[in-house]
Amino acid sequence: MKQKSTSRTLKIIPLGGLEQIGMNITAFEYGDSIVVVDCGLAFPGEDMLGIDLVIPDVTYLRDNLSRVKAFIITHGHEDHIGALPYVLKQIPVPVYGTRLTIAIIENKLSEHVMPTKTELCVANYGDVVNFGELSVEFIRTNHSIADASALAISCPAGTVIHTGDFKVDFTPVYGETIDLQRLGELGSKGVLALLCDSTNAIKPGLTMSEKTVGKTFDNIFMENPNHRIIVATFASNVDRVQQIINSAEKYHRKVAIEGRSMINIVSTASELGYIRIPDGLLISLEEIKNYPDEQIVLIMTGSQGEPMAALSRIAASSHRKVSIMPGDVVIISSTPIPGNEKSVSKLINDLSMLGATVIFQDTHVSGHANQEDIKLIYRIVKPQFSLPIHGEYRHRIAQKELACQLGMNPENVVIMKSGDVVELNRKKAVITGSVPARSVLVDGLGVGDVGNVVLKERQYLSENGIVVVTIAMDTTEHLVLSEPEILTRGFVFAKEAEDLLENAKTVIEETLNRYVSDSHFDIGRVKNEIRNNLMDYFWKTIKRRPMIVPAVIDIG
Amino acid sequence: MKQKSTSRTLKIIPLGGLEQIGMNITAFEYGDSIVVVDCGLAFPGEDMLGIDLVIPDVTYLRDNLSRVKAFIITHGHEDHIGALPYVLKQIPVPVYGTRLTIAIIENKLSEHVMPTKTELCVANYGDVVNFGELSVEFIRTNHSIADASALAISCPAGTVIHTGDFKVDFTPVYGETIDLQRLGELGSKGVLALLCDSTNAIKPGLTMSEKTVGKTFDNIFMENPNHRIIVATFASNVDRVQQIINSAEKYHRKVAIEGRSMINIVSTASELGYIRIPDGLLISLEEIKNYPDEQIVLIMTGSQGEPMAALSRIAASSHRKVSIMPGDVVIISSTPIPGNEKSVSKLINDLSMLGATVIFQDTHVSGHANQEDIKLIYRIVKPQFSLPIHGEYRHRIAQKELACQLGMNPENVVIMKSGDVVELNRKKAVITGSVPARSVLVDGLGVGDVGNVVLKERQYLSENGIVVVTIAMDTTEHLVLSEPEILTRGFVFAKEAEDLLENAKTVIEETLNRYVSDSHFDIGRVKNEIRNNLMDYFWKTIKRRPMIVPAVIDIG
Repeated sequence: MKQKSTSRTLKIIPLGGLEQIGMNITAFEYGDSIVVVDCGLAFPGEDMLGIDLVIPDVTYLRDNLSRVKAFIITHGHEDHIGALPYVLKQIPVPVYGTRLTIAIIENKLSEHVMPTKTELCVANYGDVVNFGELSVEFIRTNHSIADASALAISCPAGTVIHTGDFKVDFTPVYGETIDLQRLGELGSKGVLALLCDSTNAIKPGLTMSEKTVGKTFDNIFMENPNHRIIVATFASNVDRVQQIINSAEKYHRKVAIEGRSMINIVSTASELGYIRIPDGLLISLEEIKNYPDEQIVLIMTGSQGEPMAALSRIAASSHRKVSIMPGDVVIISSTPIPGNEKSVSKLINDLSMLGATVIFQDTHVSGHANQEDIKLIYRIVKPQFSLPIHGEYRHRIAQKELACQLGMNPENVVIMKSGDVVELNRKKAVITGSVPARSVLVDGLGVGDVGNVVLKERQYLSENGIVVVTIAMDTTEHLVLSEPEILTRGFVFAKEAEDLLENAKTVIEETLNRYVSDSHFDIGRVKNEIRNNLMDYFWKTIKRRPMIVPAVIDIG
Repeated sequence: MKQKSTSRTLKIIPLGGLEQIGMNITAFEYGDSIVVVDCGLAFPGEDMLGIDLVIPDVTYLRDNLSRVKAFIITHGHEDHIGALPYVLKQIPVPVYGTRLTIAIIENKLSEHVMPTKTELCVANYGDVVNFGELSVEFIRTNHSIADASALAISCPAGTVIHTGDFKVDFTPVYGETIDLQRLGELGSKGVLALLCDSTNAIKPGLTMSEKTVGKTFDNIFMENPNHRIIVATFASNVDRVQQIINSAEKYHRKVAIEGRSMINIVSTASELGYIRIPDGLLISLEEIKNYPDEQIVLIMTGSQGEPMAALSRIAASSHRKVSIMPGDVVIISSTPIPGNEKSVSKLINDLSMLGATVIFQDTHVSGHANQEDIKLIYRIVKPQFSLPIHGEYRHRIAQKELACQLGMNPENVVIMKSGDVVELNRKKAVITGSVPARSVLVDGLGVGDVGNVVLKERQYLSENGIVVVTIAMDTTEHLVLSEPEILTRGFVFAKEAEDLLENAKTVIEETLNRYVSDSHFDIGRVKNEIRNNLMDYFWKTIKRRPMIVPAVIDIG
């Protein structure tokens, strides 16, 4: 759908990020200019069997390609940058972000074959970049990755603040506190709308400072002077890694890093100066054997129990270089992302059984604003309208509830869904239309070719298995040329189910006898009857419903 | 394996319940007597695709059938009674339990075709039942279902306390506080071993009284006088239902019950007097239309987001009799069982989008003992040995940690695994052997016939789909009689992948040409080559690895 570009309202069009955590992407459009904030992926839901990742539908951007000026990225997390390699192939425009953000994007793009080189532009906090009548200012925030940015997006219709993912950290590990002064200055000039992170909007109180975790690490290091310490956390949480390194330095331990993404991010962050590693502290995994256990810290991926990540492989005793030794202290420095609870439990059980002491409480704080931090932003920015972002529906209505507690008119809070076109000016903020905003599934090299039909088949196969019946026929002469053959996968263990499958053959043969001699012979009907009769037979016999696929080879 | 019955130690043999939450079953054996405590099921793990439920392997009991005297059931929850209909078919012995427990078992057995009638024996708290040299005393406890019981199992080797699932509730909704006096009396006489619930052993503090939830209900009812109230909770939590009914009565609302298991349990509990429903309070689902919204409470199943339960169907707008109306207050009175977090989130989102206000905090307390309750039991019972039960490994070692904090010798705490044979007397508690203790998977009518091979196939199919290749050949004459046909399910959407499948046909034809003319023709090899070449082709083209099944029909 091509939108008219004559209107003098600001249009805000979220193309993802509102139905689940992840896949954040929002278009801002004024007149002839469109800028797109973030371009993230989502990880597949439980019902998306075999899918590698999920990216947004950018049909609207493709249909208005000439007006799309840039992607503006708030920070370097997958749910904000992960779809870029796919989307840039269709929308080849420059990408703007802070220094660490751009470095991470550069790494990511280098792992893909890109048809054209992408123009990557580094912005500093305070920079204002102009795109026609739209301008974007980068504003310092705090989050669980350095160099996170909020944005002030201005046009003749007014200024909109987009917080990105954020928290308020008065004592950040790296850099400074979120730029409350600049937000206040913008607020006092008048902010048309606030798009604020809702991830933790159901959590009361303040979000703790990242530094509190550092104190916990210090305590754990102090209380465990005789054992090896292994810490798993998110690769992208550079400040967390910094604090582990600080504790290691303080307690005279060497540090080895493991896990591909952890190694990548630490090396990027270290090159750019976002992490400070004392000379001689870092050793390789091969060198750990040269030191006694009590002088070693391992930092690695796998805090969510991801099966292929370093810590999970170690817990499964399938890591080539590291094995758990009784007494090892393992710190899981994250909380389970919803859906990962059982994997993390399994990880803890497996590590414990190998003799490790597993510590998983008080070694994590969130990177997202709790209710009191959200209220602070509202009080400073004083927006005319609010469009809660970054969260499921329940998180966003919780933010609406907070906004209303602070005195906002509920009618001025717009709960959007992906694809909505919201038009704003100083008089109103209303949903005036919609654009395509499906989830596009990526499976291997296929982008968007696995849809509902294929997913439903996978679901059915996963629960019931498949029975393939092959028969050779001469359909012109109505002759059956072979005995039916039955192949099964995921249905029964064929060796133990010989009787069942023999009887199933009889069901097929009886069906063939009945229909092949029929004067109204129809091959489609024969297949249907075989399918129905076998389904009945299996249901009556063992109360199962395998997928039944009759394959008739016609040798006419 | 047949165990000798001459030994004068008590044997404790857990046949399940230690590797996951659920499937609790433990044999106690002394001389010629075996009694089995509980006989529960587990719900299938994420990797058990298509499995309905999981039951314990009772090979050991079958091999020693003549010595098995009875099942003793601690309470009426599925993870303690759910395998009875399956296991009683192999081990037809009497079942003992308290009154509500036996009534629930009776209901359950009536839903199955049982070859012989089971002798069901009601025991009261304080009753001692003798089985040869073993005796079992029923002791009152508190849990999230009424009539829960701990057991004192005595034999010449000593007395063992089995807590069952329990908490310490000083103000229970129904009945009295756990019988701390009797436990103290037994403790003062000397307890050989304690088998104590570990479910909440990682949770600090005391478990709150069930009555605290009643106060929360009262507050919610008071604060929402103008809307319909819908409460979802576990069907088996009769005390919770009682408290909702109490609040309904207090605030002059009628109550309708929905969900099959909820209706069953409430009617059983009400007949037996475990729940008090004022006359005229209960109405049918059909009658709710006769009352204004503010006079209605619905109590139903579905608090875990189970797709087929009442509340989920209402949230999906697929319930035949109840629809959400804007303003409805929905209380989700449970916390998500690990693994259900995403389903519960979806439930909350769906209900919120329909206009309901969803309340899910402070309306649940656990039925299991937290750390301080566990310590209380240890201090009262003062066991010589401890064998933590009911919990994953990490929960049981947390209980061991607590026991050691209380001064127990770590060597006197035995961390078992299912199938271990623990032998105890006043001198020692040691693992001396093991018996079979697999998980037996139930799929439809099949018990144990779906094993690892079938599950692995289902897993592979679920992620990759299947490609079936059918070819008719005359293998004697080495003639290919038909074009290869390709059928796919869960792989690609065939209509959009015509080129891919046409090229795949070419790959098959080339393979056939190469091997069919070969003088060392071998049909197995031809199938293998087709499989390998197609796999290569699909991987190179779209980076996917479907299951490839070549079916060659020989028309010789």
